[in-house]
Amino acid sequence: MPLIGDKEYFKGIGHIPFEGKDSDNPLAYKYYDPARRVAGKPMKEHFKFAVAYWHSFCGTGADPFGPGTLQHPWDAAGDPLEAARNKADAAFEFITKLGFEYFCFHDFDLVQEAPTLKASEKRIQDTLPYLKAKMEASGVKLLWGTANCFSHPRYMNGASTNPDFRVLARAGAQIKGALDATIALGGENYVFWGGREGYMSLLNTKIDKELDHMGRFLGMARDYARSKEFTGTFFIEPKPMEPMKHQYDYDAATVIGFLRHYGLQDDFKLNLEVNHATLAGHSMQHEMEIAAAHGMLGSIDANRGDYQNGWDTDQFPNNLNEVTLMMLTLLEAGGLQGGGINFDAKLRRNSTDPEDLFLAHIGGADTFARALLIAERILTESNYSELRQKRYESFESGNGKAFEMGKLSLTDLYDIAVAQGELPLYSGKQEMLENLINRYI
Amino acid sequence: MPLIGDKEYFKGIGHIPFEGKDSDNPLAYKYYDPARRVAGKPMKEHFKFAVAYWHSFCGTGADPFGPGTLQHPWDAAGDPLEAARNKADAAFEFITKLGFEYFCFHDFDLVQEAPTLKASEKRIQDTLPYLKAKMEASGVKLLWGTANCFSHPRYMNGASTNPDFRVLARAGAQIKGALDATIALGGENYVFWGGREGYMSLLNTKIDKELDHMGRFLGMARDYARSKEFTGTFFIEPKPMEPMKHQYDYDAATVIGFLRHYGLQDDFKLNLEVNHATLAGHSMQHEMEIAAAHGMLGSIDANRGDYQNGWDTDQFPNNLNEVTLMMLTLLEAGGLQGGGINFDAKLRRNSTDPEDLFLAHIGGADTFARALLIAERILTESNYSELRQKRYESFESGNGKAFEMGKLSLTDLYDIAVAQGELPLYSGKQEMLENLINRYI
Amino acid sequence: MPLIGDKEYFKGIGHIPFEGKDSDNPLAYKYYDPARRVAGKPMKEHFKFAVAYWHSFCGTGADPFGPGTLQHPWDAAGDPLEAARNKADAAFEFITKLGFEYFCFHDFDLVQEAPTLKASEKRIQDTLPYLKAKMEASGVKLLWGTANCFSHPRYMNGASTNPDFRVLARAGAQIKGALDATIALGGENYVFWGGREGYMSLLNTKIDKELDHMGRFLGMARDYARSKEFTGTFFIEPKPMEPMKHQYDYDAATVIGFLRHYGLQDDFKLNLEVNHATLAGHSMQHEMEIAAAHGMLGSIDANRGDYQNGWDTDQFPNNLNEVTLMMLTLLEAGGLQGGGINFDAKLRRNSTDPEDLFLAHIGGADTFARALLIAERILTESNYSELRQKRYESFESGNGKAFEMGKLSLTDLYDIAVAQGELPLYSGKQEMLENLINRYI
Amino acid sequence: MPLIGDKEYFKGIGHIPFEGKDSDNPLAYKYYDPARRVAGKPMKEHFKFAVAYWHSFCGTGADPFGPGTLQHPWDAAGDPLEAARNKADAAFEFITKLGFEYFCFHDFDLVQEAPTLKASEKRIQDTLPYLKAKMEASGVKLLWGTANCFSHPRYMNGASTNPDFRVLARAGAQIKGALDATIALGGENYVFWGGREGYMSLLNTKIDKELDHMGRFLGMARDYARSKEFTGTFFIEPKPMEPMKHQYDYDAATVIGFLRHYGLQDDFKLNLEVNHATLAGHSMQHEMEIAAAHGMLGSIDANRGDYQNGWDTDQFPNNLNEVTLMMLTLLEAGGLQGGGINFDAKLRRNSTDPEDLFLAHIGGADTFARALLIAERILTESNYSELRQKRYESFESGNGKAFEMGKLSLTDLYDIAVAQGELPLYSGKQEMLENLINRYI
Repeated sequence: MPLIGDKEYFKGIGHIPFEGKDSDNPLAYKYYDPARRVAGKPMKEHFKFAVAYWHSFCGTGADPFGPGTLQHPWDAAGDPLEAARNKADAAFEFITKLGFEYFCFHDFDLVQEAPTLKASEKRIQDTLPYLKAKMEASGVKLLWGTANCFSHPRYMNGASTNPDFRVLARAGAQIKGALDATIALGGENYVFWGGREGYMSLLNTKIDKELDHMGRFLGMARDYARSKEFTGTFFIEPKPMEPMKHQYDYDAATVIGFLRHYGLQDDFKLNLEVNHATLAGHSMQHEMEIAAAHGMLGSIDANRGDYQNGWDTDQFPNNLNEVTLMMLTLLEAGGLQGGGINFDAKLRRNSTDPEDLFLAHIGGADTFARALLIAERILTESNYSELRQKRYESFESGNGKAFEMGKLSLTDLYDIAVAQGELPLYSGKQEMLENLINRYI
Repeated sequence: MPLIGDKEYFKGIGHIPFEGKDSDNPLAYKYYDPARRVAGKPMKEHFKFAVAYWHSFCGTGADPFGPGTLQHPWDAAGDPLEAARNKADAAFEFITKLGFEYFCFHDFDLVQEAPTLKASEKRIQDTLPYLKAKMEASGVKLLWGTANCFSHPRYMNGASTNPDFRVLARAGAQIKGALDATIALGGENYVFWGGREGYMSLLNTKIDKELDHMGRFLGMARDYARSKEFTGTFFIEPKPMEPMKHQYDYDAATVIGFLRHYGLQDDFKLNLEVNHATLAGHSMQHEMEIAAAHGMLGSIDANRGDYQNGWDTDQFPNNLNEVTLMMLTLLEAGGLQGGGINFDAKLRRNSTDPEDLFLAHIGGADTFARALLIAERILTESNYSELRQKRYESFESGNGKAFEMGKLSLTDLYDIAVAQGELPLYSGKQEMLENLINRYI
Repeated sequence: MPLIGDKEYFKGIGHIPFEGKDSDNPLAYKYYDPARRVAGKPMKEHFKFAVAYWHSFCGTGADPFGPGTLQHPWDAAGDPLEAARNKADAAFEFITKLGFEYFCFHDFDLVQEAPTLKASEKRIQDTLPYLKAKMEASGVKLLWGTANCFSHPRYMNGASTNPDFRVLARAGAQIKGALDATIALGGENYVFWGGREGYMSLLNTKIDKELDHMGRFLGMARDYARSKEFTGTFFIEPKPMEPMKHQYDYDAATVIGFLRHYGLQDDFKLNLEVNHATLAGHSMQHEMEIAAAHGMLGSIDANRGDYQNGWDTDQFPNNLNEVTLMMLTLLEAGGLQGGGINFDAKLRRNSTDPEDLFLAHIGGADTFARALLIAERILTESNYSELRQKRYESFESGNGKAFEMGKLSLTDLYDIAVAQGELPLYSGKQEMLENLINRYI
Repeated sequence: MPLIGDKEYFKGIGHIPFEGKDSDNPLAYKYYDPARRVAGKPMKEHFKFAVAYWHSFCGTGADPFGPGTLQHPWDAAGDPLEAARNKADAAFEFITKLGFEYFCFHDFDLVQEAPTLKASEKRIQDTLPYLKAKMEASGVKLLWGTANCFSHPRYMNGASTNPDFRVLARAGAQIKGALDATIALGGENYVFWGGREGYMSLLNTKIDKELDHMGRFLGMARDYARSKEFTGTFFIEPKPMEPMKHQYDYDAATVIGFLRHYGLQDDFKLNLEVNHATLAGHSMQHEMEIAAAHGMLGSIDANRGDYQNGWDTDQFPNNLNEVTLMMLTLLEAGGLQGGGINFDAKLRRNSTDPEDLFLAHIGGADTFARALLIAERILTESNYSELRQKRYESFESGNGKAFEMGKLSLTDLYDIAVAQGELPLYSGKQEMLENLINRYI
């Protein structure tokens, strides 16, 4: 099943099997059993697990205090196109050994950016056929594509929010290319992460102008892609800060307000990331609930942050309590709207063994799989849903229902309150519900 | 000018004079000179400084680890109505000695809540004439009123977002009373702070339902007040957390999205608080810029948080850099939309001298006054505005303007980018601008 | 087995049985099986679970934004001594129904403080015999006692660090009484939590003087207790902030340095609290590791914080990953030095059912029990310990050992480095180890 | 006065003059007047302002989300030694144009590291004469040197705390070279910043072993330097986290405890950094007070963090309130013990004009100078010191003094407390003191 290229990059590691929870084989899944049916469909359809091209095949372990610790053999070639093909070989070998069916990329993950726009465009065009062939050979699909409009120095003051229109135009040209590539590869969705759409200092920034520009810009990108028959969903990926002091796509609620304000709500949904949620002061479940409440729970970038560190650590997910709560919301929301679970996570700088990349993805996939199984049991075997439902039952009839239907005025409420007298206190039963969750973990 | 009641509560302290920056009298203003004209109008009109009834006359210095350190003489009376009148005497003595022209209150700041709705209502009704007389005698006005729908145990699961409709109705009845009182006293605005509108745990919460309820509820309150000829502005006061784990009115952007979603944007604006901004991960200037960008910069609760402590410390404002940036935004936004500067700040628990309350307000007022003067000089004497304007000049003509007017498509951007070639980098000049600000402080 | 007083306070709830993990009885233990042997001794001896008198029998659900939601029936009596006896009845009923063997208290948890020192002292003296009798009747023991030198207004500027010597003396007198009471009840340890030992502002504080005072004061307290034949351990409980802006007992490392500096290291160890660890920017496991590295892992206050809230939420423990790591360190450190696991946790404000207190403790105890079982399996069934050991094996012989024994100089290191050439990179295997932990959860 | 090399790197900018606070020349000092006497000595002696070789001449504006925005002309040469000389030319031109008298460096700031230890050593040796000549020609001195034992991949698991002894030896060899270089250049101090001395995960870490190794290692380094007649001070620079999840030199209190534990307290003091203080949950003034209380206030790395961002932003200092408090502590502590004020700060990524580096340092120096002048006035013109002194006066005689002298027992305190009766509350006067500070700003 693994798709090996001319050279096998991860020698000694074959297809990762499902062996069940009693296995002590580190290179086997204990819980992720792709075809197992959960809540009406196979596990793999709930998740659509994707590998992130950037962290897994472009990341080197560099951090602000030191260069990379990894030298990828696929980067060795001097020719960028050859290096791109080698990287694709490594990537598809890895993805297929994992048994995943999806990947995600930025434009210049696929191939190194060239000095000019046209040359860069050509490099991508030249790489696409090779990638397409590998996708066809393996059955691996593109969950989403995106453009990296944040790394190059030209974007240091923003891309669509740059005060210099020419940079905005340049970002537009780049995104056109990324949309073309995504469409060419049959990408199911397209993501915008505005890494430099924000500010370093309010002293040199006009927020209103920049937000207007971003709103218009996104509309233009959508219009272009629709004109090219792209029918997938656009996602905004919120992140509150880093690299900028503040980023406009702060969190789910902020982005939803923005999308509505600029008339983008019918085409755009959210791609939520765990570590971005926590940087914004939220739990990931909160962000998912907010998105679900607005019908915008599109996709998930799976990772975890460090609760004692204030930056994007992008660690692989492994917190069972955290992911169980996420899966509860996922099931109750009826699943993701078009997207999947992309492991936007990176190895620690000192995880330098080739197998570490496998171990990390296996651990992540197992955590999600186990949490999904737990969540399903909570929803079907326990009284969890019933308890939640019952808590709001006063709105199902009588005055409560009349209120919801807009039939009451403030004076009606007053009259009701006078008539009803003082009220009993109802326990929120938080500790009981927390125990219930743990009982199923 | 001070309005003293039957008993003088702050003996030995008279009217606080303006003495200028060389004064070493702790009980004099060094910068706050109410009638001095700044940016086209008297200082006092920029600010409309208000005293917060709750912290200043109801607060005792209690914290979660100990009871109050203050025993207010105005609380001594056994009869709630008499105590309310004594408190009003103290409050108006204090406000008039400070030379402020406004105050703000919650319903049960004025008088202690009674065991029943009707009895509580009556206590307020009985207290209003006394208050009104003091307002008339002193010229002091009501900046805004509000209802305390968060302290009483009945609201432990929320007020308008309570899962029990009866509690929602009870909150409606209480808010009706607070609106009536605010209107009776000629209040210029009305504030909603949803201290319990949020959740302690997502396990027992349906966010979508609760948000819908809150949206409808606010509309009902608005409709009622408008039907009673209230023409002032309604404010939502964002706070991200505390007392709840999460509050729905998280920050400016979240609230603005909410208001638009529920059709409340024409009647509601924001009352922003410094310490709430920082708890939400924002600078106060950021929150003001976001509000101003949407025309919703309504009012300010002035205080400051502690950057090393993660709760609402509500300290009096004294950070010159922070307030200067706030005043820059205030002036550039054309001032506050209906509101003023309310000192929603409390003395430290160990500040137990009666004069401390004066010193704290004087320090706060002087910080604002000084910052306003600095901001005016920056805007009129330096090239600050020009530099900001110039940074965006590419959007004032040609393709940039065409983009803003919606006349370009993504392929137009592509063509422009191809034609323009690679671009120069323009420094954001952040350090220069920071130096410029400090030069005027 | 439950010890019921004249009145049964928790009617309808009997002794909490162990029923195993398949039980769906919310009022049964699923994992906590007191007599089950784990790592060489019964579970209950690893833990010495204790109930906290303050949260469980004195707490009312009050928070900074509202008064309590609970009115305890044992507080109804007008006479403080009678109320104290009733509270003791409720407490021992609760503790014995849970099947716990320990409790912890502050002096004025036992009985309400009186207006004077002598009268307060007398109240405690009068209450002790009743308590002692209940302890004997039930077999319940005192894990530790402490004095509340932070709630009363007199301590608003500190207790042993108060700039007014008279307050320091007053604290000394109070602590003498608490030590006497602890000794009288056969307390196994004595705790100092310096809730007001710190500062609100550096502007009015001389840190060096205050630290010297605190060091001397603790020594005096120790000397007194030792002179009264107290042989137990003294614990310092670190907390970085709240209620003060900064508290001197910031974290484990700070306290250990302080204890050594003032010669207290032979009598004092640490009482670590989960939520205090996280407020200080640490994981609880980190704090435990630091304490263990210095032989000072004395006792644990079990609770958890909210990772999105910046104050002491004191929630009951339920995070399996977090507690598993704690138990790993506990077992590897050879257990606690004298102390136990005290549930210093409180119900949510809206958890108002009497059974909620049971559910919360059951959930906490089960989380610890389950985590202990997991940790034991990791240590005995997996290669976890071996991997850790092996990582440092270069120090077990040759130059590494010579280094550890102090036999090398910097020039020796230089010579070794020159000789050895460039070095291979060894993966830290973090993801593998994380997977390993999860495999056993 | 500026020392220009073969090529002038900062053309158009000459010596930065002091022009006084009314100057609007961005390239002039408004407050930093080096020779002006403040508190008994020239300003420049209080500060010993130093330029950081790494940020200013090696930094490129790279961040985790993009490569550098700056291409330094001095880096253009292909030969590392020539590039090193060019960089030295640029550095000394810059330092002398600023009128600073000090610089600081890491070994591989001076010249790029070579593939082997010996070759790297030789590069440094070959560069030193050039540097020394420039120092002599300009009068610029070395405030401190240090070794970069955190960037190279070999240190990914730590340097002196690496579990592999060979890496520890390698670090020893490197530090020997850095000490030699520092001594050769007449460095006044030597700094240890343990950027990788900590852990990424406790699962693979033995803290006790690693701390022992670090303690012994530092002692060896000290012994070596002393044997080479180095008489300067060694500094530890605390930082709580980043790049590691946790670093052992967490904060001032932790490091002081560590130094005492390993017998290093007579040779080592602290080099405190503002942004590191805030990452550890402290104000910078707090860290300075802690260091001063232990006689260990050695040196300062001047910068500022962003209170809304949780990583090391290393911005140039400009917060007047913050720096004024720092200068108060500096003056009251009698100045720095051997060190100076090193601008360990970096330009924003989008500050790409050559003049920005000047503007940033000018703004920083002016902020310190202004704050020093303010602090001096507070200490000499106001009653600030007297108020602080008076607050503790109860310890200057009678029982308070007896307590401080160790002449009282706990029972003595009890007797005193019984005799004194209940006590009055003394206000901490925090708001008054805060107003006082602002009056002098």
